[in-house]
Amino acid sequence: MPLSHAPPRLPSGGAPIGIFDSGVGGLHVLAAIRRLLPAQPLIYLGDTARLPYGTKSASVVRAYARRCADFLLAQGAKMVVVACNTASAQAAETLAEALPVPVVGVIEAGAEAALAASPGGAIGVLATYSTLASGSYRRAIQARAPGRQVVDAACPLWVPLAEEDMVGHPATRLIVRDDLAAPLAAGVDTLILGCTHYPLLRPVLVPLCDDYCRRQGRPPLHIVEGAEAVARQVAARLSTRPAGAGRGGDGGADCTLFTTDVSPRLWALGRRLFEGPLPPLQRVDI
Amino acid sequence: MPLSHAPPRLPSGGAPIGIFDSGVGGLHVLAAIRRLLPAQPLIYLGDTARLPYGTKSASVVRAYARRCADFLLAQGAKMVVVACNTASAQAAETLAEALPVPVVGVIEAGAEAALAASPGGAIGVLATYSTLASGSYRRAIQARAPGRQVVDAACPLWVPLAEEDMVGHPATRLIVRDDLAAPLAAGVDTLILGCTHYPLLRPVLVPLCDDYCRRQGRPPLHIVEGAEAVARQVAARLSTRPAGAGRGGDGGADCTLFTTDVSPRLWALGRRLFEGPLPPLQRVDI
Repeated sequence: MPLSHAPPRLPSGGAPIGIFDSGVGGLHVLAAIRRLLPAQPLIYLGDTARLPYGTKSASVVRAYARRCADFLLAQGAKMVVVACNTASAQAAETLAEALPVPVVGVIEAGAEAALAASPGGAIGVLATYSTLASGSYRRAIQARAPGRQVVDAACPLWVPLAEEDMVGHPATRLIVRDDLAAPLAAGVDTLILGCTHYPLLRPVLVPLCDDYCRRQGRPPLHIVEGAEAVARQVAARLSTRPAGAGRGGDGGADCTLFTTDVSPRLWALGRRLFEGPLPPLQRVDI
Repeated sequence: MPLSHAPPRLPSGGAPIGIFDSGVGGLHVLAAIRRLLPAQPLIYLGDTARLPYGTKSASVVRAYARRCADFLLAQGAKMVVVACNTASAQAAETLAEALPVPVVGVIEAGAEAALAASPGGAIGVLATYSTLASGSYRRAIQARAPGRQVVDAACPLWVPLAEEDMVGHPATRLIVRDDLAAPLAAGVDTLILGCTHYPLLRPVLVPLCDDYCRRQGRPPLHIVEGAEAVARQVAARLSTRPAGAGRGGDGGADCTLFTTDVSPRLWALGRRLFEGPLPPLQRVDI
């Protein structure tokens, strides 16, 4: 009998890993999983007809998340990854109880990655109002590190700024600087990018943090995001070696994308988050 | 036989006028109708569970708009006002053909108000991508004034800036200034605020336009919005005197608000758009 309480390991290959998000943000998570597990077939559902989830109430988000998960199960998914922060906050726990397959959410993964990176000080959570209001990052962090200080910072403009590709616009720097002011002043040593779109703002965010720390004579901050953390959790739940187990080359296993509505502008953003050309897209009604 | 082809006039009072929007933006339209027609009972539906419509395809928007209109008819509405620009662009015509009551859309009303204000030059349309892509303002203007120049200007950040009450933030001025650059350089004499949220940015927008015109030695621009124009169209379709026909006082006739999801933050914005305390809210599933 092993002493560790490791989660059950699943057979690799064959059935796909299912990933869903309210839109295209989860493609960043999909890309991270594909990099780590190139032999795993993947299916992705973007519930773009109902996006964004962040402005909706918990019960509505839970109902939509269940529909997404049921669609992925109907496609034969052997695991469900909740790549949307709002759905992860509001529905991951309910899904984990209800579904016959393992469920991995971005929030638990992000909290673990932040604790692994942080030298022990306060952790800042940058996220939408909805994600912060759920208290999910705070709970996930403090369940693993009781008493650890968590500083919430709402960044409601960052999604539209990322969507509009305004990373180079001077207004973006002003907004990001203001949103960072409170967690930086609180002395956080680690920041969680608690929304799938936020990594697109790294070119603005990282220099601002670095400048601040240099002026304060402090070491640079650790900036963590959910995508890589989720990929590592997914790998840990599979009975396969994470890297090198793929078919090799840049093709890898099948990757199929579904969406509940078609929006060319949105999928242009998806390509930036996926960091490459997207597989073909199929529209579905769920 | 009258020579004018005036639309049929309806009895006043009794049955309510129904107004719908994807969210709370249409409360600005509701307020304008209530100011002009205080004796008319009004019902409002905000389809907040499906908001925003602007990122969704035409067929999805048409399906949602039909559900909203059917709900208002089931409540006894004698007229349907499409207070959402996206729904007005994609669905007002279809609804007008399908419904047994008159349909008034913000886009036709806004186009008429712009033509009434403009001394004859180019008209600028400030709107979301979705509204501009539909070409509805351009068609509505050019159907009434063939050959009139129309300058489209997408302002995708204005809704989140208004929602976040960032009118006083320096970033808002930078973004609004950039979005206005093309229509101002094209020499428009009139600007349509083609989205229900944009009037909240008037404190930034108007000084920028005034400064530009002063520097160029041109007369100030006419800035028109759909809300008042819609209210006048609604009044024209009713067989009642528009003002003074009410019960007097600041109470007026019944005003009932429905929403498909409850979001406290959204309704805080609604109060700003409604310019006063809101009537009680009822959640409905449609």
